[in-house]
Amino acid sequence: MPELRKINLAEAFSAFQETWSPRVGGDINDFQIKLAKFEGAFHWHHHEHEDELFLVTKGKLRMQLREADGGDLLLGPGEYVIVPRGVEHCPTAEPTCEVVLLERNSTVNTGNVENDRTVRDLGRI
Amino acid sequence: MPELRKINLAEAFSAFQETWSPRVGGDINDFQIKLAKFEGAFHWHHHEHEDELFLVTKGKLRMQLREADGGDLLLGPGEYVIVPRGVEHCPTAEPTCEVVLLERNSTVNTGNVENDRTVRDLGRI
Repeated sequence: MPELRKINLAEAFSAFQETWSPRVGGDINDFQIKLAKFEGAFHWHHHEHEDELFLVTKGKLRMQLREADGGDLLLGPGEYVIVPRGVEHCPTAEPTCEVVLLERNSTVNTGNVENDRTVRDLGRI
Repeated sequence: MPELRKINLAEAFSAFQETWSPRVGGDINDFQIKLAKFEGAFHWHHHEHEDELFLVTKGKLRMQLREADGGDLLLGPGEYVIVPRGVEHCPTAEPTCEVVLLERNSTVNTGNVENDRTVRDLGRI
């Protein structure tokens, strides 16, 4: 039988410090839950085929959205947003935050952009 | 562009009272985030093809697992478990809890069992 365990988010987040380096917290079919720490601004990007859910558990996250009528979304703990595929976005922590991501296991953090923040082999909690 | 909005979990949970009647909180490709209120015991079931993530946001959830060596898992706010497909489980709130579910949009709440708690057309928040 697959390993069955309980994950405590606060404990899992306390076990790593790197920002912009999501940890895989488990597989749900071809989706993954990832834990990430953000600090300041990431960069503008989009995902061609993949929607992305961001659930803030600590701190403040400003989700800048290029095409949104309503402007930025500012999220605090217990708030989430789903950024649909194709929508250009720039996650910005003010000044730091902890975020649970839910997305396909094929999703690369920097989307259509390849740069020094691109992480392909994620660690696991 | 698809609707882009922020969801506050506490507000969304306060907007409905029915137990064992998950509300869809958004689509992430072919997955969905669902908000559910549990009270007491559900019943034993499994999902043939679908893994299920349970994240507790309020209250206590005992996840009974038929085959687990470690016995039940008891989860509180900020804790989650992924129940793999095929694993028989019985979620039991002690006495009530609020849970965020992440699973394929094809997942039916009662899995392999059809009974009066089976809900096929879920409301949306």
